[in-house]
Amino acid sequence: MKLYDMKMAPNPRRVRMFLAEKGLDIPMEQVDIQAGENLKPDYLAINPRGVVPTLVLDDGTVLDESIAICRYVEELHPEPNLFGKTPLERAQVESWQRRMEFEGMFNIAAAFRNTMPAYANRGSPGAGPATPQIPAMAERGLMMTRHWMNGLEARLSASPFIAGDRFTVADITAFICVDFAKWVGVRADDSHPSLKAWYQGIKARPSAAA
Amino acid sequence: MKLYDMKMAPNPRRVRMFLAEKGLDIPMEQVDIQAGENLKPDYLAINPRGVVPTLVLDDGTVLDESIAICRYVEELHPEPNLFGKTPLERAQVESWQRRMEFEGMFNIAAAFRNTMPAYANRGSPGAGPATPQIPAMAERGLMMTRHWMNGLEARLSASPFIAGDRFTVADITAFICVDFAKWVGVRADDSHPSLKAWYQGIKARPSAAA
Repeated sequence: MKLYDMKMAPNPRRVRMFLAEKGLDIPMEQVDIQAGENLKPDYLAINPRGVVPTLVLDDGTVLDESIAICRYVEELHPEPNLFGKTPLERAQVESWQRRMEFEGMFNIAAAFRNTMPAYANRGSPGAGPATPQIPAMAERGLMMTRHWMNGLEARLSASPFIAGDRFTVADITAFICVDFAKWVGVRADDSHPSLKAWYQGIKARPSAAA
Repeated sequence: MKLYDMKMAPNPRRVRMFLAEKGLDIPMEQVDIQAGENLKPDYLAINPRGVVPTLVLDDGTVLDESIAICRYVEELHPEPNLFGKTPLERAQVESWQRRMEFEGMFNIAAAFRNTMPAYANRGSPGAGPATPQIPAMAERGLMMTRHWMNGLEARLSASPFIAGDRFTVADITAFICVDFAKWVGVRADDSHPSLKAWYQGIKARPSAAA
């Protein structure tokens, strides 16, 4: 297996953190998305979508989508369990994981992609038509990121982890989103004590440095 | 179990079609999203997120996110298999399913939510802050919907189904997105023969009428 990765980017970090939680170490190659390496012929020959991360299996099979890669790893290496142990827990983890993506990641990415000069005409990730940046979309993304963060505080004041009483892949997504949000200037503050305590707990895990 | 549903809306339709493929029939209650019923206190007491569909289990547990609901149903009723039979197939189905959401559903929804008068100030689904419509986002959504549809044609000229050689949940998402795209004026045409043939095949399944 080999993982095409970018150290700075939030989605590849999800996979690295997941692998670290599983105690796995696989070869990685860096792809500089900001410099547009993911859109050059060499990388498009590996993954025509131009997205990172991409996992290439030993037989050449290509897997993308961070959470699909994580799920594959979970099936090959079930312990420690990160996707849920029962049908109900798996559904709840999935629901929370998706919320962290849709309410967190997507809004932060909207704020980021639609303002950063390096992403001019690349308002959408990966290969595809040029997408001029939309300032109003960045503005909505920022506002919704703050709303998401307040929702996290409410959740974490009632639950020790995002999906319930133990650490799961939903915490990985949420934790990385909290860090990603700093790139667009949104930070937990004194109105987010439960979020801050949870964040410090996750940050103390060795996987957070992966 | 009870499903809160809206006959016209694409996301609840995914769950209904999934249940029909499984041969299951569960009680449903209609929620009129367009009229804003999902944002009224009665519904918010059931699901504070204000999203539809929502599945309520017999013990009162609330599950949302269409794909989390489908995954739960798959675990309780494994046949016919719709999420993949092996770790690799499950990862591939997940990756394709997500692409249909992110490249299809989200772009169509962006075009729809940011133009329809009924969704003024509701540019984002569910409860949450007012989000004024953003015409440029609708425009990008339309353009990306066309791009997604061309990508579907390429995929379906090489593969009988979205995720490979058999019908899966990725086909359900894609099929419903093709119908949803009509609401924003995007239709398969003569440049999409493989997509049209696949569409007719899916439409002929009894579950398509669910």
